[in-house]
Amino acid sequence: MARKDGRTPDELRQVTIERGWSEQAEGSALVSFGRTKVLCTASVLPTVPRWMSGKGKGWVTAEYAMLPRSTNERMDRESVKGRVGGRTHEISRLIGRSLRAVVDLRALGEVSIAIDCDVLQADGGTRTAAITGAYVALAEAIAWAQANGRIPKSATPLIDSVAAVSVGVIDGEPMLDLAYVEDVRAGTDMNVVATGRGLFVEVQGTAEGAPFDRRELDALLDLALAGTERLTAIQRDALEGAGA
Amino acid sequence: MARKDGRTPDELRQVTIERGWSEQAEGSALVSFGRTKVLCTASVLPTVPRWMSGKGKGWVTAEYAMLPRSTNERMDRESVKGRVGGRTHEISRLIGRSLRAVVDLRALGEVSIAIDCDVLQADGGTRTAAITGAYVALAEAIAWAQANGRIPKSATPLIDSVAAVSVGVIDGEPMLDLAYVEDVRAGTDMNVVATGRGLFVEVQGTAEGAPFDRRELDALLDLALAGTERLTAIQRDALEGAGA
Amino acid sequence: MARKDGRTPDELRQVTIERGWSEQAEGSALVSFGRTKVLCTASVLPTVPRWMSGKGKGWVTAEYAMLPRSTNERMDRESVKGRVGGRTHEISRLIGRSLRAVVDLRALGEVSIAIDCDVLQADGGTRTAAITGAYVALAEAIAWAQANGRIPKSATPLIDSVAAVSVGVIDGEPMLDLAYVEDVRAGTDMNVVATGRGLFVEVQGTAEGAPFDRRELDALLDLALAGTERLTAIQRDALEGAGA
Amino acid sequence: MARKDGRTPDELRQVTIERGWSEQAEGSALVSFGRTKVLCTASVLPTVPRWMSGKGKGWVTAEYAMLPRSTNERMDRESVKGRVGGRTHEISRLIGRSLRAVVDLRALGEVSIAIDCDVLQADGGTRTAAITGAYVALAEAIAWAQANGRIPKSATPLIDSVAAVSVGVIDGEPMLDLAYVEDVRAGTDMNVVATGRGLFVEVQGTAEGAPFDRRELDALLDLALAGTERLTAIQRDALEGAGA
Amino acid sequence: MARKDGRTPDELRQVTIERGWSEQAEGSALVSFGRTKVLCTASVLPTVPRWMSGKGKGWVTAEYAMLPRSTNERMDRESVKGRVGGRTHEISRLIGRSLRAVVDLRALGEVSIAIDCDVLQADGGTRTAAITGAYVALAEAIAWAQANGRIPKSATPLIDSVAAVSVGVIDGEPMLDLAYVEDVRAGTDMNVVATGRGLFVEVQGTAEGAPFDRRELDALLDLALAGTERLTAIQRDALEGAGA
Amino acid sequence: MARKDGRTPDELRQVTIERGWSEQAEGSALVSFGRTKVLCTASVLPTVPRWMSGKGKGWVTAEYAMLPRSTNERMDRESVKGRVGGRTHEISRLIGRSLRAVVDLRALGEVSIAIDCDVLQADGGTRTAAITGAYVALAEAIAWAQANGRIPKSATPLIDSVAAVSVGVIDGEPMLDLAYVEDVRAGTDMNVVATGRGLFVEVQGTAEGAPFDRRELDALLDLALAGTERLTAIQRDALEGAGA
Repeated sequence: MARKDGRTPDELRQVTIERGWSEQAEGSALVSFGRTKVLCTASVLPTVPRWMSGKGKGWVTAEYAMLPRSTNERMDRESVKGRVGGRTHEISRLIGRSLRAVVDLRALGEVSIAIDCDVLQADGGTRTAAITGAYVALAEAIAWAQANGRIPKSATPLIDSVAAVSVGVIDGEPMLDLAYVEDVRAGTDMNVVATGRGLFVEVQGTAEGAPFDRRELDALLDLALAGTERLTAIQRDALEGAGA
Repeated sequence: MARKDGRTPDELRQVTIERGWSEQAEGSALVSFGRTKVLCTASVLPTVPRWMSGKGKGWVTAEYAMLPRSTNERMDRESVKGRVGGRTHEISRLIGRSLRAVVDLRALGEVSIAIDCDVLQADGGTRTAAITGAYVALAEAIAWAQANGRIPKSATPLIDSVAAVSVGVIDGEPMLDLAYVEDVRAGTDMNVVATGRGLFVEVQGTAEGAPFDRRELDALLDLALAGTERLTAIQRDALEGAGA
Repeated sequence: MARKDGRTPDELRQVTIERGWSEQAEGSALVSFGRTKVLCTASVLPTVPRWMSGKGKGWVTAEYAMLPRSTNERMDRESVKGRVGGRTHEISRLIGRSLRAVVDLRALGEVSIAIDCDVLQADGGTRTAAITGAYVALAEAIAWAQANGRIPKSATPLIDSVAAVSVGVIDGEPMLDLAYVEDVRAGTDMNVVATGRGLFVEVQGTAEGAPFDRRELDALLDLALAGTERLTAIQRDALEGAGA
Repeated sequence: MARKDGRTPDELRQVTIERGWSEQAEGSALVSFGRTKVLCTASVLPTVPRWMSGKGKGWVTAEYAMLPRSTNERMDRESVKGRVGGRTHEISRLIGRSLRAVVDLRALGEVSIAIDCDVLQADGGTRTAAITGAYVALAEAIAWAQANGRIPKSATPLIDSVAAVSVGVIDGEPMLDLAYVEDVRAGTDMNVVATGRGLFVEVQGTAEGAPFDRRELDALLDLALAGTERLTAIQRDALEGAGA
Repeated sequence: MARKDGRTPDELRQVTIERGWSEQAEGSALVSFGRTKVLCTASVLPTVPRWMSGKGKGWVTAEYAMLPRSTNERMDRESVKGRVGGRTHEISRLIGRSLRAVVDLRALGEVSIAIDCDVLQADGGTRTAAITGAYVALAEAIAWAQANGRIPKSATPLIDSVAAVSVGVIDGEPMLDLAYVEDVRAGTDMNVVATGRGLFVEVQGTAEGAPFDRRELDALLDLALAGTERLTAIQRDALEGAGA
Repeated sequence: MARKDGRTPDELRQVTIERGWSEQAEGSALVSFGRTKVLCTASVLPTVPRWMSGKGKGWVTAEYAMLPRSTNERMDRESVKGRVGGRTHEISRLIGRSLRAVVDLRALGEVSIAIDCDVLQADGGTRTAAITGAYVALAEAIAWAQANGRIPKSATPLIDSVAAVSVGVIDGEPMLDLAYVEDVRAGTDMNVVATGRGLFVEVQGTAEGAPFDRRELDALLDLALAGTERLTAIQRDALEGAGA
């Protein structure tokens, strides 16, 4: 079955990661999954949250947000509404957990890294693009911190890399990296976060339409791991090449 | 390996569901998973949210909250803080999605059912207990609505039942229905929502410690489906017996 | 004149106090005034509010809230609305003042006791039930704190007990402990908080319909003091019996 | 016992009511109880709250607030804090109830009157001054509305007048109209709202120190009724004289 | 062209400044520009904002607000809405900047002065009246602080005075100190803040209707400086005369 | 005097405007003033605010915000703080007013255009870059709306163009288009909004250090008008060239 944009079921959209986009942040990446564009920045902060203070460990936190007209119809700003919505909260927490899964917090020392993922344009898969880009920004910030004496040069804070991709079942067929029009039609929708070594960090599968069985679940997991493996390679290229 | 409370790895805590606890709500259930106690009420409302209006379909929504001293240390009230936290939002959304997966919204007509899950006492697994109890409250409310002319008697709004359970890997061993002290120690933590027929509605697995591999994931899914099967039986008993 | 539930004008509804309901809180009581049910917990905290710090005195504070479907029609949650309403504030302050009236704050040392009164089911008189149950939770928590070295065993923090009841004039006749349907019809409505020794802590009388004269006021006060005397006995039984 | 300002125990502070202070509002009064000054305005609005709509009845509502430096130490603004405090809520509700007790809402027609009581300078008794001044603003606004065709000329919306005063026990002696330094020292503190005919609208007595007995309560009520009688006369003079 | 109130184009409304209006604040002024009345208080606080702490400098801050019925139609309270509006924020910031322009913050020592400008009645020009009155309250508070040992007697915290006035173009003619009905009709609207020595602190010109050219701008600036010169004289009189 | 980046005092930074950056919005522009980058989108909405409804006129509104790490140090998100700050409010209002000054609202019909200006990277002059880019996004959106039947093709909604630039006095010398390091040092700081025809829409001059005199004001206005003239030409090129 042909996808609207001509991809095969197991094909990612065109993925680009522009490392070092920001001249202000210690780490940054502008990541695109097709028309989805997310600006990820990493800020190195000299303190940890109060509840962690004095334990000799660092922290990694993340905030996700969408620009009001990143989507097809304008959304009200959460700052103007005066409260952060449930979906925003949920994705921010997911990004933070995913990154912490590959960081040795003890190796950071009492340093926080605050990741901001702002969706400039949305076309499905914003949370998985955000995780994938955020890892690059994080790695760049850690390198900066080690070069600038904020984290010991001898430390190894990153114990693996992490990337994420969506998968879903459309008209009975499992597909990789759903664009918005596909996401809307998918009966089952799953986001998979995996490490560069191919281990799971987070598996979130939801029956949007009919509940799904074990066989479908297995097919989706296979597809997702193949996708995160390719994203891992793109991340490596972005980190090895010269920054923007 | 013996669990602290003497259970085997694949054993649920003592689960009770007291249907009809409330004399005010159209449906209600006080559900206990061991020391975890959640009061679930279902309110039948004559309107649907504005964005659904005029489509001839109903809606099911849910809100989850914890009493401030349901936990071992007192938490500040979200009403006093003036904002609902990310975890609360996330669980409320999960409960709503889980219930809607077994409801034929068209069969409801333009009626909403608002589920409230308030944790009176917490000892791990509050979200899975909430989903399991909420289904019973929902079923009771739908029966009430059909008996009282709010939903046509000929309609079949419930297309399946739904229950949920947590599973996790502790010291390398997969375990069912984690109590709080177990949850804290679990390396991988998964919540599984499944229907009475044994299909998945939601799978949320998180590596709290080291990332997990496919084999662990498979073992956890097996354990969880066995657990939801037993919860389905307890739900059926609660609905077939006389209410409180 | 017969009351709807068959009581005489000077008769309380069936009052039960289940001490030690919670396995988490230092003190707790599930109190029922007929169909009105309030869960009261008392949390012993090792600090006092900043403005009291360093004075060698303790503090007792209270928060009251209603579950959204404790009432006949579902109310929106105050956490979701993002603000605590006027009635909630008012009752929380009343409960706190009433309890502090029988506590020697100096005898507590720099310890706070936070009382939470959550209405699980409402049928009139929730604030008076809350005060009556809160006293029992408070007394249990103080006993716990003295047994566990948080408050000196030699101290006598409780200088009296405290209970509360509503009274009102319905069709010209003063009545004790109004249920919701009575409360709605009452011309004058009064809440009286009194100590075990029969002294007034708080008298709040409001003309809901026509203003009232001195004679009516006197009759209501007589009725209320008889009511709080009986509630005092029920509190004593709850505290002397074994906890839940 | 001499009071600090030389008054006898049953003496009001100097009370002045400047009717028609505002050139914008339909009714207004600048009321002083000694150094306590409250600006009361009454706004005639052509609608009623949604829940009252279509019943052919009007509504009277009130909001109370203190300027940040009305007190001896500057308080933060509630608008800046983003929430209205419990005390503010409580007093606003009290003022609204007190005024509605002397208004025939049916005679207003579907018209609301919004009372604003802003404390310009505070020296104790701000809520009782506010009620006393608010009645004058209300009466002026109703007269305006009847003269301007908003309320039928033939209607009699005001069925009585209403005034309020504080009383308290200081060093064992009941005293009328407490200034701030007296209020702080009072063991029992009571606010009494009464009509021009001498009937009670609201009685709120609180034991700030030791609980109080029936005899003290009786003495305070006597004192308060004598005070509201004098305030009623001052209100009448303000309404009969020419406005500001 | 005659103005509605008979003034010539370059004539101020009647301006009065009642210094020392408040018996609570360290400095205060009730300022009237015609029917516009603003109560300005200045509070001397022993601390500076955290971000200024330890620099040996003081701070001056300001908050502006309008009473709900200061205007022709009642506005909702910002405390009740739970947020401070854009216009309020903007004016508060303007007042603070204007006052700081004439204060040597180093001469204050680590002392803050909090200015509150509350509009009791509004008829155009509330922000310019507020600045003009706030300066008088500030000067009185600084004198108090020097007399009471909070600021060294030898210091000279005030390096100039500051006043403000509005100007606008109505039907092609530049006019000084616009009343509300004039403000509504003005094509160009400008607020000018200037020091007693005739230097500009702030110039804010806005084309409400058609954009304006350089010639108009020049005429408005001339008119404004003549106005602030007269206001400076009135401020001096208020400060030299005895306070209220 | 040489500027840090080598510019002459009357030289703009490198200004680029990438029209049509967004594939979602009806109009968009990514504008750079040196390192300052602002993404401006324009959304065509089929309704007007309620207070304008039924008047046959349209509306243009604007919201400005900064990404948390657009600046040198990370700022907290306003959505997380739960309130929009004063500076944000002020700039949003300025952008909206500036755009409306060149729009014939009657020619729009009952259509709103919502402008969002999000600062991706900040290095001084974000509000002036935002206005300059917002005009281009607005013009593109109006062209879209006329091509798509939302606004009559025969209408002429744009009556002029609008651009903005900052000017300031540094060490006595007036300079154009201040970068952040210059802005911090400027004694007087002015933002000027002017139309393509060279008329003023808004003039906002502030003495950050010493107050300024008429001669300085004149020099700054000359410099600013030369700057907006050049920006007008760049806007015209962006609108005449093909979009991104």
